[in-house]
Amino acid sequence: MAAHTPTNRLDKKPPPKRQVFAGTFVHSKSLTELEILHDTCVYVDEDGVIVKITTACGKGKDDVMASMGELGWDTKEVECVVFDARSDEGVGESFFFPGFVDTHIHAPQYPNSGIFGSSTLLDWLNTYTFPLEASLSSRSKAHAIYSRVIQRTLSHGTTTAAYFATIHVDSTNLLADLCLQYGQRALVGRCCMDSSSGANPDYYRDEDAAQSLERTKQCIEHCEQIDPTRELITAILTPRFAPSCTRELLGSLGKLAVDRKLPIQTHISENRSEVAWVGDLFSECGSYAAVYDKYGCLTPDTILAHAVHISEDEARLIRERGSGIAHCPVSNSALASGVARVRWMLDRGLRVGLGTDVSGGFSASVLVAAREASCVSRCVAAGMGGPSSEGRGEERDALSVEEVLYLATRGGAEVVGMEERIGGFEVGKQWDAQLVGFGRPLMRRNEGGEWEDDVEGGVEGVGVGVGPVDIFGWENWEERIAKWVFNGDDRNTVKVWVKGRLVHQRK
Amino acid sequence: MAAHTPTNRLDKKPPPKRQVFAGTFVHSKSLTELEILHDTCVYVDEDGVIVKITTACGKGKDDVMASMGELGWDTKEVECVVFDARSDEGVGESFFFPGFVDTHIHAPQYPNSGIFGSSTLLDWLNTYTFPLEASLSSRSKAHAIYSRVIQRTLSHGTTTAAYFATIHVDSTNLLADLCLQYGQRALVGRCCMDSSSGANPDYYRDEDAAQSLERTKQCIEHCEQIDPTRELITAILTPRFAPSCTRELLGSLGKLAVDRKLPIQTHISENRSEVAWVGDLFSECGSYAAVYDKYGCLTPDTILAHAVHISEDEARLIRERGSGIAHCPVSNSALASGVARVRWMLDRGLRVGLGTDVSGGFSASVLVAAREASCVSRCVAAGMGGPSSEGRGEERDALSVEEVLYLATRGGAEVVGMEERIGGFEVGKQWDAQLVGFGRPLMRRNEGGEWEDDVEGGVEGVGVGVGPVDIFGWENWEERIAKWVFNGDDRNTVKVWVKGRLVHQRK
Repeated sequence: MAAHTPTNRLDKKPPPKRQVFAGTFVHSKSLTELEILHDTCVYVDEDGVIVKITTACGKGKDDVMASMGELGWDTKEVECVVFDARSDEGVGESFFFPGFVDTHIHAPQYPNSGIFGSSTLLDWLNTYTFPLEASLSSRSKAHAIYSRVIQRTLSHGTTTAAYFATIHVDSTNLLADLCLQYGQRALVGRCCMDSSSGANPDYYRDEDAAQSLERTKQCIEHCEQIDPTRELITAILTPRFAPSCTRELLGSLGKLAVDRKLPIQTHISENRSEVAWVGDLFSECGSYAAVYDKYGCLTPDTILAHAVHISEDEARLIRERGSGIAHCPVSNSALASGVARVRWMLDRGLRVGLGTDVSGGFSASVLVAAREASCVSRCVAAGMGGPSSEGRGEERDALSVEEVLYLATRGGAEVVGMEERIGGFEVGKQWDAQLVGFGRPLMRRNEGGEWEDDVEGGVEGVGVGVGPVDIFGWENWEERIAKWVFNGDDRNTVKVWVKGRLVHQRK
Repeated sequence: MAAHTPTNRLDKKPPPKRQVFAGTFVHSKSLTELEILHDTCVYVDEDGVIVKITTACGKGKDDVMASMGELGWDTKEVECVVFDARSDEGVGESFFFPGFVDTHIHAPQYPNSGIFGSSTLLDWLNTYTFPLEASLSSRSKAHAIYSRVIQRTLSHGTTTAAYFATIHVDSTNLLADLCLQYGQRALVGRCCMDSSSGANPDYYRDEDAAQSLERTKQCIEHCEQIDPTRELITAILTPRFAPSCTRELLGSLGKLAVDRKLPIQTHISENRSEVAWVGDLFSECGSYAAVYDKYGCLTPDTILAHAVHISEDEARLIRERGSGIAHCPVSNSALASGVARVRWMLDRGLRVGLGTDVSGGFSASVLVAAREASCVSRCVAAGMGGPSSEGRGEERDALSVEEVLYLATRGGAEVVGMEERIGGFEVGKQWDAQLVGFGRPLMRRNEGGEWEDDVEGGVEGVGVGVGPVDIFGWENWEERIAKWVFNGDDRNTVKVWVKGRLVHQRK
């Protein structure tokens, strides 16, 4: 197939501009604490980098403009984006929040979202997943699916995604092109799967380690060609999971990671049958984590998806190597893989982010993953962590709203090795952000201080209809944010920016 | 306070009309099987009752009209509602589905949806719930909240709801009025809570059994006045939960249920501390279920919410009495109550429906409850059913899409004692239904039989934007329905009818 010519290369983007964002900003101060900054301005330069943050900067455009003096910016050349409850943009109550990081998503599986029957991992792969992935040899199919998954994840506020693609070079390169075109920050990995041990179907695998490596290099070249400095797009080495790969391939990828300074992503310990199988296939290694370690695939830039059933020893090894965990709660529930013990991981010093794991996970939304992370952590707290928890559960196993939002942003940024660039609002970080809007509150205080019914007409007649979250008017900001986490959806994600560029806007 | 005058009594509704609905119909044939009927017409008379169903009746309005002869209906007086993929209503692919039954929802708690922190049942009641419920002594607040919860639940396709209100007579009667006005089928219960044992706060309880009973009777009178034949509105006796009630009150309510032929709703065995507490408070009874049974509150028309930790003996007793279970998976997860074993209940012959349990449950959508019922059943299957499951889990513990949709419709109808009237599409049943729409598929087959990219523009530019579910075009109907269950929301619920009356329409 002919090489793909990107239709919207970085160098064809509209000329960069300076921007000021004003309103309420919310981000993680620590794992357990959100910082909520009102009447704040964030100044973003022409490279999409935050250069100044001022609090108590006033609420009108004039106040904002006036405070621009010391930056030496010509106010005529600056775009000013002000959102607060009094702005008339139809957004109502709103706040800026860091873009979400999806640390684990299979782009080609997106059309199967919600389709998994009563299968578990290994039969799910053969029944639903491999046939669909194999069909992405079709460029037109890949184009439709990849365009859609990028549009949808952006609409959910995902500004960075670590994508598994398929084994196909051309389709994988197309995914990288489309991420660049739509402006999503992405790690793009061609699936490496060369084993003939039964893990991979004959109709869908690399022939051998040499071919797998060669194809992988073609994808790396492509990414480095379209985005040489890895501004948005980074190639990522992607051994599917241990049973899919020969020892030769794993070793080659481990070496390549060092030679080319590339991250790695794979799966670990998702399902008990899989864990037992790995034990058989790699009996010399002692544990699942030890397999990856033996072949140089457990690095500080490795993303390990799932880790539901890892042992104390494995946790220690992963901690020592500095690899990160992609916690995929929706997928773990859907495929009956089990309940990952996130508090247990955090206690052991592991870095943890969230993954949607489409389509083992049925939702492409990191907000939904955060919600489910909270729910399943409460099952662990109730003593339902399964045999590996030995029937124990403690109140502190429950993850708070603050904690799941940390995992969705800063935690994810750490896992994909970008914690210096994204995940929060600080000078020097890039402007990867979403504007979250609630609409108008449903009630108001009357002159006597009583809450007064402000409801008219049907559902659509109430508020400005931006989404599924009802704000009555008396909630504090912590409560508003909790409402967003548990009932919000893409309707609340009003605008999304990556590196200063507006990449999604709710219509 | 003056008695409320309903603004839209049944007798003020627009004159009844005959209707024909045509398109694809999906409903439960059995617990494990959905029936999918294409090119089908359902004829609904002026009382909102299905009088005829014809399959293979053609797709155009003319075909439908022509088939009306044998009913003796004058076609000029019949409204014809046709939806199929080719109709130009902007709905795209669509199907009719029975309205959902929410077997357990606390209407006054709706504003707290998503607000529960890291609390569990007993502290959640004191911290979040009682203060909000107590504030519904304000009629204007009750009006706003109750209007909103009815609008929202209708928008989620809930055609029947079993509501807990508050202790306030006036607000409870207002809820009944509003259900009637908006046209939602409802069981409306004033909360009975007279105990001074510490379960109820002093600022929010009935003074004694006599007062509780007297207030309850006022609510029963009101419901019987506004809807004497219980066409839509039924009063339901609502002892909050055993710890809230004196033995005298429980006994009086049990007797009243018989005297007035009234259903009962309450909670059972939601949380381990609660179970232990009931054991202390009612040590003479032997079990939580036995408390309700001793005082005549375990009837064939009793709805028991949660039942997470019930024993074999309790299951047997509940089965013998014929009471139903409201399974509330979202709430059980959110409040870390545990994972209810639905397969275990079904195996024991218990009737089970779904409850949103707002606001212990954070979502007012029965579709979300169905989704979470599926997810938590897979945790049970993975051996995470907690100590009471003794670490065992079996594949068959997982609930299928078909099963959770049964629970959401026919199962719920059984639990609220309305299985003869609602829950599926049969002649003699009432037309309680929702039209579910997906929009236009994203891809199409070209002349060569290949799937072709049909994607243009951004997310909003693709399909007709009716909702969060992407149909690519190759999915079969079972797969489309699974996609709806796992990713659908109120945007897919295009229209909703109760007893033949259009009560919600997506705008």
